[in-house]
Formats: sequence, structure tokens, C-alpha cells
Amino acid sequence: MLVSTSFQQQIQERLNRVRKQTEYICAPLKPEDTVVQPVVDVSPPKWHLGHTTWFFEAFILEPSLPGYQVFHQKYAYLFNSYYEGAGERVERAYRGNMTRPSLEEILEYRKHVTQHLNEYLSGPYPKTEEIYRVIELGMQHEQQHQELLLYDIKYILGHNPLFPAYREEILANGKIREAIGEADFLKVDAGIFEVGYEGPGFHFDNEECVHKVYVEDFEIMDRLITHGEFLEFVEAGGYEDYRFWLMEGWAWVKEHKKDMPFYWFKVDGKWKHVTLHGLQDIDWDLPMTHISYYEANAFANWKGMRLPTEFQWEIACNTFSPEIPEAANFVESEYYGPAKRTAGNYQFYGDVWEWTQSAYLPYPRYKAPEGTLGEYNGKFMVNQMVLKGGSCATPRDHIRPSYRNFFHPHLQWLFNGFRLVK
Amino acid sequence: MLVSTSFQQQIQERLNRVRKQTEYICAPLKPEDTVVQPVVDVSPPKWHLGHTTWFFEAFILEPSLPGYQVFHQKYAYLFNSYYEGAGERVERAYRGNMTRPSLEEILEYRKHVTQHLNEYLSGPYPKTEEIYRVIELGMQHEQQHQELLLYDIKYILGHNPLFPAYREEILANGKIREAIGEADFLKVDAGIFEVGYEGPGFHFDNEECVHKVYVEDFEIMDRLITHGEFLEFVEAGGYEDYRFWLMEGWAWVKEHKKDMPFYWFKVDGKWKHVTLHGLQDIDWDLPMTHISYYEANAFANWKGMRLPTEFQWEIACNTFSPEIPEAANFVESEYYGPAKRTAGNYQFYGDVWEWTQSAYLPYPRYKAPEGTLGEYNGKFMVNQMVLKGGSCATPRDHIRPSYRNFFHPHLQWLFNGFRLVK
Amino acid sequence: MLVSTSFQQQIQERLNRVRKQTEYICAPLKPEDTVVQPVVDVSPPKWHLGHTTWFFEAFILEPSLPGYQVFHQKYAYLFNSYYEGAGERVERAYRGNMTRPSLEEILEYRKHVTQHLNEYLSGPYPKTEEIYRVIELGMQHEQQHQELLLYDIKYILGHNPLFPAYREEILANGKIREAIGEADFLKVDAGIFEVGYEGPGFHFDNEECVHKVYVEDFEIMDRLITHGEFLEFVEAGGYEDYRFWLMEGWAWVKEHKKDMPFYWFKVDGKWKHVTLHGLQDIDWDLPMTHISYYEANAFANWKGMRLPTEFQWEIACNTFSPEIPEAANFVESEYYGPAKRTAGNYQFYGDVWEWTQSAYLPYPRYKAPEGTLGEYNGKFMVNQMVLKGGSCATPRDHIRPSYRNFFHPHLQWLFNGFRLVK
Amino acid sequence: MLVSTSFQQQIQERLNRVRKQTEYICAPLKPEDTVVQPVVDVSPPKWHLGHTTWFFEAFILEPSLPGYQVFHQKYAYLFNSYYEGAGERVERAYRGNMTRPSLEEILEYRKHVTQHLNEYLSGPYPKTEEIYRVIELGMQHEQQHQELLLYDIKYILGHNPLFPAYREEILANGKIREAIGEADFLKVDAGIFEVGYEGPGFHFDNEECVHKVYVEDFEIMDRLITHGEFLEFVEAGGYEDYRFWLMEGWAWVKEHKKDMPFYWFKVDGKWKHVTLHGLQDIDWDLPMTHISYYEANAFANWKGMRLPTEFQWEIACNTFSPEIPEAANFVESEYYGPAKRTAGNYQFYGDVWEWTQSAYLPYPRYKAPEGTLGEYNGKFMVNQMVLKGGSCATPRDHIRPSYRNFFHPHLQWLFNGFRLVK
Repeated sequence: MLVSTSFQQQIQERLNRVRKQTEYICAPLKPEDTVVQPVVDVSPPKWHLGHTTWFFEAFILEPSLPGYQVFHQKYAYLFNSYYEGAGERVERAYRGNMTRPSLEEILEYRKHVTQHLNEYLSGPYPKTEEIYRVIELGMQHEQQHQELLLYDIKYILGHNPLFPAYREEILANGKIREAIGEADFLKVDAGIFEVGYEGPGFHFDNEECVHKVYVEDFEIMDRLITHGEFLEFVEAGGYEDYRFWLMEGWAWVKEHKKDMPFYWFKVDGKWKHVTLHGLQDIDWDLPMTHISYYEANAFANWKGMRLPTEFQWEIACNTFSPEIPEAANFVESEYYGPAKRTAGNYQFYGDVWEWTQSAYLPYPRYKAPEGTLGEYNGKFMVNQMVLKGGSCATPRDHIRPSYRNFFHPHLQWLFNGFRLVK
Repeated sequence: MLVSTSFQQQIQERLNRVRKQTEYICAPLKPEDTVVQPVVDVSPPKWHLGHTTWFFEAFILEPSLPGYQVFHQKYAYLFNSYYEGAGERVERAYRGNMTRPSLEEILEYRKHVTQHLNEYLSGPYPKTEEIYRVIELGMQHEQQHQELLLYDIKYILGHNPLFPAYREEILANGKIREAIGEADFLKVDAGIFEVGYEGPGFHFDNEECVHKVYVEDFEIMDRLITHGEFLEFVEAGGYEDYRFWLMEGWAWVKEHKKDMPFYWFKVDGKWKHVTLHGLQDIDWDLPMTHISYYEANAFANWKGMRLPTEFQWEIACNTFSPEIPEAANFVESEYYGPAKRTAGNYQFYGDVWEWTQSAYLPYPRYKAPEGTLGEYNGKFMVNQMVLKGGSCATPRDHIRPSYRNFFHPHLQWLFNGFRLVK
Repeated sequence: MLVSTSFQQQIQERLNRVRKQTEYICAPLKPEDTVVQPVVDVSPPKWHLGHTTWFFEAFILEPSLPGYQVFHQKYAYLFNSYYEGAGERVERAYRGNMTRPSLEEILEYRKHVTQHLNEYLSGPYPKTEEIYRVIELGMQHEQQHQELLLYDIKYILGHNPLFPAYREEILANGKIREAIGEADFLKVDAGIFEVGYEGPGFHFDNEECVHKVYVEDFEIMDRLITHGEFLEFVEAGGYEDYRFWLMEGWAWVKEHKKDMPFYWFKVDGKWKHVTLHGLQDIDWDLPMTHISYYEANAFANWKGMRLPTEFQWEIACNTFSPEIPEAANFVESEYYGPAKRTAGNYQFYGDVWEWTQSAYLPYPRYKAPEGTLGEYNGKFMVNQMVLKGGSCATPRDHIRPSYRNFFHPHLQWLFNGFRLVK
Repeated sequence: MLVSTSFQQQIQERLNRVRKQTEYICAPLKPEDTVVQPVVDVSPPKWHLGHTTWFFEAFILEPSLPGYQVFHQKYAYLFNSYYEGAGERVERAYRGNMTRPSLEEILEYRKHVTQHLNEYLSGPYPKTEEIYRVIELGMQHEQQHQELLLYDIKYILGHNPLFPAYREEILANGKIREAIGEADFLKVDAGIFEVGYEGPGFHFDNEECVHKVYVEDFEIMDRLITHGEFLEFVEAGGYEDYRFWLMEGWAWVKEHKKDMPFYWFKVDGKWKHVTLHGLQDIDWDLPMTHISYYEANAFANWKGMRLPTEFQWEIACNTFSPEIPEAANFVESEYYGPAKRTAGNYQFYGDVWEWTQSAYLPYPRYKAPEGTLGEYNGKFMVNQMVLKGGSCATPRDHIRPSYRNFFHPHLQWLFNGFRLVK
């Protein structure tokens, strides 16, 4: 492929920015914070730092930079996540026992790989379109791990009895925002709509294959459900009434003795929650977050409404908020939590990933790509639900309406939330 | 409701027929066979006999037959399945330890309840439309348990090292059927279709709310995948190649060391499988069955095709086989296993429940009914997949194209199977 | 070996008596009761019936009766317990799923084997001393299973919400006995004592090798701890105070939420317990039973005393009650539970197996016999505690002071109890 | 208590030495190494550092130093191990998730507490005999944790695919030692012996109450079993032959698929093992270590011998090696592994803790002390086996013949080994 210098420089500049951002996210951590894996879903920050680096080493430098020597023979084994096609790896549940390489050594590894990526990009080496696609994928992949890093850091610090703050200087989110009123409903008339992504920009395979869907009339909330609204559910005995719950949700409530949302505590009669600022009083106007699909669904049943399908959500977003508004709260705002709504922001973008009532399944004509990177998305298409819109931990340039995120219904450690349709 | 005598007699006649059929299914069992629960999904036959009886006692006789005394105070506790609204119950996993009431006592219980149902139906008691609806539901419910009974009996006998036959006299299924050729594909053009049920006949809440869907062009196999076709997958190393599998499916293969289908054995180099006739040589032309969603999906990936969505399946069925053909293989044929296809039978009905690539989720406008019976369907709508068309264990009058069955993706003990689309 | 006819007849007579007793124990059961295994320690009665029969078939008839054909090729697989040397077997935890052979078929099997044993014993076949030893072992083994049968039957019926009685006609134990006063203590002076068995009578390998032990002065209770005494511990908050408990015992209390003894219930403010008569009011003068080592040990700590070592117990028994008193309560009394003490009976024999503070370890010079039957005792010598004296489920001719029974410390389903030393 | 200044100075000097030694042991670690808990038995080094410090703070400074303020309110919660009497604590299995306080903060905590202990000891504060006893206990306790630290560090580094060495400068143990010949057996004649501790020196409660035991004639090996001897067992198929194993041992072999000793690897056909020097070739003359009771017992059965009882071991040690020989290999030698025997050293002291065939049970007249420190030993007296003699990780001044260490039979991560008797 013949690409203009400026395109190449632009990629290189973005690559360095993305790589630096990962390190920026980890900068406030002590070495001890970067090792542990308190539950299987939470990976050690040290591992994220290594894994995102291994991704570039394995899929770019090794095959494409002439004469490149891997930084360490064992790192592929240590930092492969789930790519069966890329060989043996440390069992996921065992990541948290790997005290070595140390944080310092992994930062060395990062430096080494970033330098060689720069050498490769700026040097006289042939670059195919495919390689640019993989570099782009590597950056997007690293941005996804930046987001996971913030979930995991919150989990690690938030489960420590000392409740340390992540960054002393972070903004008190929402404080500067206006108070919130009743939600309005946005109306969409029945019809055939197109969903999915088509165009030159980056996108994942799972959102390809634009296709038509028929959707009935619906009305969708113009903002996210708040902490205050969820509190009403808690106080109405929502966690004690089986009628609102899916059977698996009710079993989950019983098994884990759930009687309040994740990260909430009642301290001396007063509600508090864990944030990346430490343990704080709850500001009830903030969007609700750290909520499982089971809880979101129970709340919807209690209200006599529903979660939107992924298509309802995408159509509403395309209709009412096709462009990302300035006010959207992404990781760059450094609130590290959802923020109160401001006028005119429907909160489709940022703040929290919104649960939909759609299972994560392949689009018509979807085919996973050949080779190891074909394992990226397709093999997860069972028993997970689609989430839309990005969160306060997502980079602004990482999201679009067709983006399909997916998680198992019981998960609470990510910045997820929801809105309702009727 | 004013109903004609003939309607009432008809219900009564059907009710007695359904009740008798359950007992007919259990007749070949020894008392010992009716007690155990070898895995949590398999309920003791004794329990099915009691549970289907309790359903009528709790939802018809107790509220509606004046002066009715429950047969035994503790039976509600013993025979409630999952109705939170109907009080405490024996933990599901503990059913298999309940040696009492004995089979004989439960048959007494059945007799008692059936007699009182007859008394109620033929007697001078007021009957609302709602009550007829619940009686109808009770019959459909009992038919569902008849089907489960056959799965469970097969499991119990099929895991015994003596491999006892269920009925000595059952027909060697398929023997009388013609050999099978290559599958053809039936074509459907893209467009808007209606799916779901609307009409006066019985149907479950989950298939209500007829609605439009847009479906792209597709071609669907005109018959089921056979044992012989699946053997090719096995022999091509399908169970050893992660590339064909969903990640959860691959984990399931690894955890359970799966290397062949359920109920298959290789005895002295020759493939055999467990049937309700005992351990038999495999007839390769029979439709494949006892296959998890993971396996069906892996097979489809290996073939470069897909499982149909529930809408593709329903549209194809409505298009090519709107009526149930005479040749369809239901429980009344007493083959107790899938049968070879005969000319002109597309096998949409009977033989095996067909996996679709659709998660079990609510239709637009779906609302679970109020009250305890609202727990019938809605609360299962997460992490399960839709299956269509009925099986060799289904009563013929129990099925229709809009029927939505649902099971977790790993389950193999039911008569399930699949066909492909491209 | 040249044995007198009378010896041979005596063995034969005893053998038939023992075989019949096992069937007598199972006679009140329904076929359903004989199948299940509600917890791993509880074997199905049907299995005991088969296993004790297989023992004679495998170790006597097969090797020694010319021309003997095994009753069924698969029964060795179904009825071997833990003899690695005797080939493959059904996993212990899976016994409860084996609905076939039916109870009736197993009774046929018993008849077949007993008949052939009689043929062998009375026929002109050579019999070595070793063979008589194995026949004796087979009878003792069957008596041990008779005892287990009663534990298991109690567990199966006692965990059924209908609380069926085992035999309608059984005696209300203890009713005819006198009231019980304070326990006295029997004194033994320090010295060297001999323990273990030496002599011509039957005994297990684990009690062989008479050896000297030095024991300090001690005083031992002249009767068993009663339900009433244990109630004081319960009411004093014994289950809530970690100080009395071994660390593993405390973890067991917490994990299983223990707050009262096994088989006890508080029904409308009144204590009841499960017996083989069904659910009954507790008679506080009865010896305490169904008590784990952890509980017995906690009780002792609470009292500031100790459980006896196995040597203290054996020395006291040899000293104060060398012969089994008439009043001792064994299975032949058909109380099926411990009985109140009568004057002069120190309760060393029968009623309940008494926990000692001795781990089950080999005696000096102990060597497990060669061959499959060497697996009988020796391989259990770790992590179990010794119990002494027999129980209300033990045959009177099965016990002696040197008998060493052994169980894991958490087990409660057997008839165990204890007394204290100071 | 009136104590001489020199006694006080001596205690103070020893205290500082012990405290410093703990820090010396941790000095080579990176902060990352100090956080994790790969299995429940392995505690994070950071936790050991904090726990041994909390012990002095809770049991000395808080009750006895006027005006003492705890370093941090939450540290009692974080660093209590199992003392129910000392309040709530982090669940043991969750220790490894506590990334804060950081290593640096814990070292601060140590400094703070050590300083105040010095202030207390050298200052004008009253000191009772009891307080000196607790200080002594605190030092012994810290020495026990020093030993655990080395086990845990070995586990953490030894399970890392990079196999880092603990200290670069450590001596290659055994290299300077002479080759080893056949073991001889030391003979002891039957008789009454005294065991246990009586005297003014420090000792634990569990070894108090000197008492007589009668022991038969025995012969005991004059050295430890070596790696080479154990290899013969491995090569003779010891891990595949059930006959040598206790039933629980055989279940452990099967469940964990054991086919070689812990820390052994076969790399390209050559045996290697993990040491604190990293992965090394095995020197076959070194004493065998990291061996469970099950394995030691199976080896003994294979040899037709036995493990000694704790009394046999103690009597032999008192008879043949009443004083600790110069050559004994303790932590001060800095080999960090067992060493080859030198002439005249019977290896009763140091190298490896020797499994005995004695369960850990109370001595006659044993009573756990009142109060929280009564939880030190007594509550572990079930399901563990006694080990004797100290190891290469034990401080030389910490051991005596009467010392009773105890562990569960399956544990392999400590420096344990064995010798045989016949």
C-alpha cells in the first residue's frame, strides 16, 4: 500500500499517545497494586501492561520487523490472554501469582517494544494494508485494556480496608454539573432501520455487515437511571422480592446474599460507595453504575418497563445524538466515574456502558476472520449481553453508535448502567 | 363462561387421556428407577408423577372445588418445582433423596386428584374461562413433563452398566424407513415476515405478540443433520480443534474431556450408542441427537455454515411445512428416538428439538402474566437458547411452528438436534 | 485342616444366621428406600445387600467352589467397595444412581450365593484354615454392614419430610429403664498395661500385636454422657463460643451453621429428635448420640475434662467390665437407639461407639496382610479417630474390648457418643 | 519480677536480632514478591512482616506501654492471623489481595513497633514475669514465621516460569560435603522413657508435662532419606501402585495427578528441582525434602519399614545426639536447603522437619493456657501429624528434642523429610 507520510506519522503519533496513556493510568499505583488478581475477572495491572505490549510484539514486530529479537523468550507464555492460536499460556486464574517480571521490568519491556514499533513505522520497512489494520487493532485493543485497567484498579483499591484513593488530584465528578429532573422519553416510530457499521473508519468485525431490522414503535429515556432512582428500588425491598427477578438473577441474589448494589455500604445509617476517590457519600443525581444485568432487569420489571434492545438503542442514538456531544464524559475528563447530565446531553456516549436486552450473537453474514486474530470477538458469542455507548473509562476516540461491547450478566465491576424503554 | 357440554366433555376426555399417558410412560419402570436424580437436570420419575398432580391440586382443586381437602399436607412442599409464589419447597438438587412417598402412594395421589378433577369438571360447579385456561395449561404442562420423563428415564437407564431396555416391545426406529441422500436447501427471499402466535388455540405467553421481523435471503437444509454427518466431524478431529468452538464451548470440552457425542461409546473399535432399547449399533442415517449447542455450533463452523435463527426456522417452517405431516415422528409412534426421514417430510416437526442461534428473550410487548403462573416462562429469559419443532418424545397435539422451547447451551440429555442454513 | 463336623456345622449355622439378619434389617424397607445415597457416606441399602454378597462370591466361591459361575458378570463392578486389588468399580459417589439391579434381583443374588456357600461348606470340598478365616471375615464384614445399614436407613428416613418410622413395632427404648443420676468416676492407678488382642477368637488385624503401654493415673466416668447433659452445653451457648473448639471444629460449625446436634429440631419451642421411630420428644436421660468428635471434644473442654485415650478406655473396660453384661444394649434388643443405663452397667458395651482422643494409627509390629484383603484396615490409618465398645446397632457377638473402630472426626450419622476422663 | 539488668539487656539484644533477621530474610525481595498468596497455605511475605509486628503491638505495647497509640487502627484487622480472641480479621484466603499497606509502609510499622519495644524494655516501666514470657513467645513466634517466610518465598519464586533465584550469593549447599554411604541403624532397647520438656528454658505448652512412655525395641536410621533413595521409589513405579499408599494418600495422588515429588521436573530427560537458587540439577546425595506424609508413608511401606513415632524419634535423639552438633544445618548456614550429611552428624537437627507416625494430640495433663494466647497450639490438635527436629530454615536457637511441630499430611511446601525405623 502506498500511504502518505502524513498518514504514517499520524498513526505513529497516535500509537505513542495510546502507549503513553496506558502508563499514565498506572502511574499512581505502587508496585504492590499491580500484582494481584482478587477475582478471576480482575487482571493484575502489571499483566495488562505486559499483555498489550506482547500483542504488538507477537503480531507486528515478530512477523514484520526484520531481525527483531523478542525481549524475553518466556513473555509470550506470560502475556498471552486467550489466543489458542498463539500457543501455551499461563492459566487466567493464575495470573495474579506472577510476581515476576517486576513492574520495572515490564516498563522496560514496554519501552523496548514501543521503540521498535517506532523504528518499524518510521523506517524503510514494507508495510501492507493488513499491517496497518493490525496496528490499528493493537491500539484499539490497548484502549480496551485501559478501560479494564480502571475497572481493575477500582476493584483492587476498593476492596482494601484502607480505601486508598487512586489519584489525589481527581475532580469531584458531578459537582460542577446541574441538578437532574425527571427523565423524558424520546419517541421512535416503527419501521425498517439499518444497523451496524459500514465505512472507512476503524470498527470491529462484530459490528460489520450493515443490515436491516424491523422495529416497532418505542419510547426511550433521554438520560441514564440515577443512583437516587435505584435507591427507591432498594428501599422498596427490590432485593427481597423474587417477582422482579429472572430465575438466574434470583439464584445469584440468594447465593451471594445480595441486598444492595456493589460498592455500596451503609455506614452508621448513611449510604456510602466506593469510588476512585476512596469511600464517599453517594451523590444521588449521579448515573447508577456497577450494576449487573440481573439488577437492571429487575429494576425494569419493577418499573413495568424494559431495557432497550441493542437495535432500539442504536436507532435512538443515531436519531437523537448522531454526533458525540462535547459534554460527554469520557476518560479524558478524568472524573473516573459517571457524571451528572447536563442539558442537551442524552448520555448515549460515555458515563456508563448501557445494558441492552440483546444477547451477543453474530450479525447476518458475520464471519470471524481467519487466523489467530479471528479469536478476537466471534468466540464469545454465547451467554453474554450487549452493552452500548462507552463509559467514563473509555477514550473518546474509541466509541461509535455501532460499537458492541459484551459481558456476562452477573458482572458488576465495570462501569455499567442502563436506561429504560416503554 | 357458558360452554357447551361437548366442550366440557372434550376437555375432560383429553384430561383423562393426558393423565393416563403419564402413567403409561412410567409403567415399565421398577419402583427403584423412579427415585433417583443422577444429575441435577434429571428429576426422579416419581417426582414428575407427583409434581404434575400437585399442579392441578394447587391451581384447580384447592381454589375451585368446594370442600376439597388436600391429599397430604406435605405434598405441596415435596412437589412444587420452582414457583416462589407457591411457598417453600424441597431444594431441586435434593429431590433424588426423597424415597417417600413411595411410587405406590404417588399413584394413589394421582388417582385421587384425577377423580376430583373429573368430579369438578362434570359436577355442578362454576367454571370460569380462567379456570379452563389453567386446566389447559395443566395439560400442556403435564405433556412437557411426559417429554422430560423420557429424557430422564433414558438418562437413568442409559447410565446403568447393565444398560436395561426401557420397553422390550419398542419398534426399531428407522428400520422401516428409506435410506437418506444429500440434503437439499430450501430458499427464502428477504423480506418482512410475521412471527409468533395469534389465535384461539392454546399457546404459551412467550410466543404471543405476533410481530414483524425483517429477514435477509437464506437457504435452509430440508432435513436434519444425521449421525453419519456428525461422525465425519468427529473423525476430522472436531473435538480437538479449538477453532470451531465458542470459547465457553471449548472450556466445556476441556473440562469434561469431551471427545465424542453424549451416549456414544466405542466398543471394540465399533461405534455404539445408548438408546431406549439399550446399547445399540449406530444407524448412521438417523438424525443426530443428544447434542449440545456448543457441538452444534462447532459443527456449523466446521461446515462454514450456521444454525438458523428462530425466525429463519419459523419462517421456513411456515413456508414449506405449515401443516404437520402424517410422517412426523412424535411420541405416539413409540420409536422413542429420532427416525430416518421419509420423502416429503422436512422434519420440522418431531424427531428432535432443533437448536437455533437465537437467545431466549422476550418478544416485543411481552408481559409475564400476574400471579404464580406468571413464573411459567418469563423468568427463564437469560442465558438459554431457543429450540424449535418438538421431538420424538413430544405429543403430536402439543406442538406448533411458533412454539419456543429453551435450554441452556451445554445440555445433551434431551432429544435435541439441528439443521444448518447458509 | 481337619475340623470336626460340629465346627463346620457351627460356622454354617452362624453364616446362615448372619445372612438372614441382613435381610431382616432390610425387610421393612420399600424398594424406593433401598436405592438412594443422600450423602457420600450413606450407601444405598440395596448396595449393602449386594456388596456383602459379592464379598463371599469373590473371596470364597470364585476361588474355591469348583465349577462356580458368577451370578452376573457385572456385579463385581457394581458391588466392589474400595478393593483396588479386586478390579474396577462404580465410583463410591455414584452408587446411589444405580437403580438396577432391582432389590428383587439382589435378593435373588443373595439367595444364589448363600445356597452355594451352604453347598460349599457341607459338600466334599477341601477347606483350608485360610478359607475358614476368610469366611469368618466375611461374616464379621457383613455384621459391620448391618450396622452401617441401620445408620443409613436412619439417615434416609430421617431426612424425609414425612419422617416415616422404620418399624412400627419397635420398643420405646429407655422407657422401661430407671432414671439416671450423677455419673461417678472409676479410678485407675498409673502403671504399665497390656492392650490389644491375643487369642484364638476372631479379631481384626488392627488390634493384633498385644503391647505394653504406660498410662498415668486417671478417672473415667462410669456411664455415657446423656442428652440432658449435652443440652446444658447447647443452652450455655456452646455452639457460639470458639474457645471450646478445635480450629477445624470451629470451621465446621461456621461452614455448616451448626447450632444444635444432628437430628435435633426445635418444634414450637420444644426439642425433638429423629429416631428410627420417627420424630420424637427427647428423653433427656438417654445417652447422647450422633455427635461428632468436634462436638464431643468441645463439650469436654467446656467441662474442663477430656475424652479418654483408646488405651485408657480399654484398660478401664478390662478392669471394670471385662465381660459383656446382660443389660448391654445391642442390636438384638431391637431398641435401635441408645438406652438408659441400668444399675451395674457401665455402658462400655453397646449403646453408642465412644469417641476416644486417639488417632487411628498402627500398633507396634502391625503389618497389613498381603493381598486384596490387606486393604481391609491398614490403609485407613490417617486422619481418623478411634471409637470403642460397639453400639445399639452392633451384634452382641461382634464386639470385644480391643475392637478398634474408626471414623473421621466430623461424622454424625453413626450411633456415636462419649464419656469423659479427668 | 526483679530481673537483673543483664537479663533485660539480653532479651532486648535478642529481640532486636530476631526482628532484624526477619527483615534480612525479606531484603532480596521485590515489592511485587511480597503481596501474593498463590495457595491458601502460602501467606504473603508482607503479611508475615506485619503479623509478627502486630503480635508485639497487641500483646505487649497496647496492654503494657503507657500512652502507646496503635500505629494504624486497621492493622489489627489486617494482621491478626487466627486469634478469635483478638477480634475480626481479614479472611485467611483473602490476604493475598491486600496490596496496601505497601511494603514500605509495613517496614515503617515494624520500625515503629521495634522502637517502642526498645523503649518499653529499657524504660522505667514495670515488667512482670508474664510479660517476659509473652516477649519470649513473640520472639519464638517471629522465628516460626521466619521459617514460613522461606517456605513461602520458595513457593512464590519457584512457581514463576522465570525461576528467579532468591539470593544470588547463596552457597551451593552440600557441595562441600562428603559423599554419602548406606544408612546404618541405631538400636534402642525396650523400656520406659520420659518424653516432653521440663526446665527453665523456653518451650511451647504442647511439649510440657513430661511423662513416661513404654516403647518396644526399635532401630532407627542414622541419617535422613536422600533424593537418590527416593528416586528409586519413583522409578520403581511407586506413584502408580496403590498397595503402598494410605487410602487418602492414593486419592490425593489421583486427584492431583501426582507422579513425582513436588518441585521436581524432568527437563529433556534430566531431573531438575526448584531450589532457592532457581531450577537446578538434582544432587542425589542431598536429603529428600518437600515430601508429604502420604509419600513418606508410601516409601516406608515400599521398604517394608515405618516412620518413627514421635516418641521413638525423641528417645533416639536424646540417646544419640542430646546436643546439637556443630555441623547441623540451620538457617544461619545460609544454604536454604538440606545439606549432605557429614560424619558424626545423625541429622536429627536441622536440614528437614521429619515426619513421624504420630498424630498431633495433647500430652497427658496438657491444658491450653487461658486467654487469647491459649489459641497458640491446642486448637490444632486434630488431623495433623507431628514433625521433629527443625530444618534448614529454622534458627539454631529455636529447636530442642522435645519440640513438636505439626502439619497436615498432604503438605509439601515446607522443608520436610523423613527417616525410617524397623
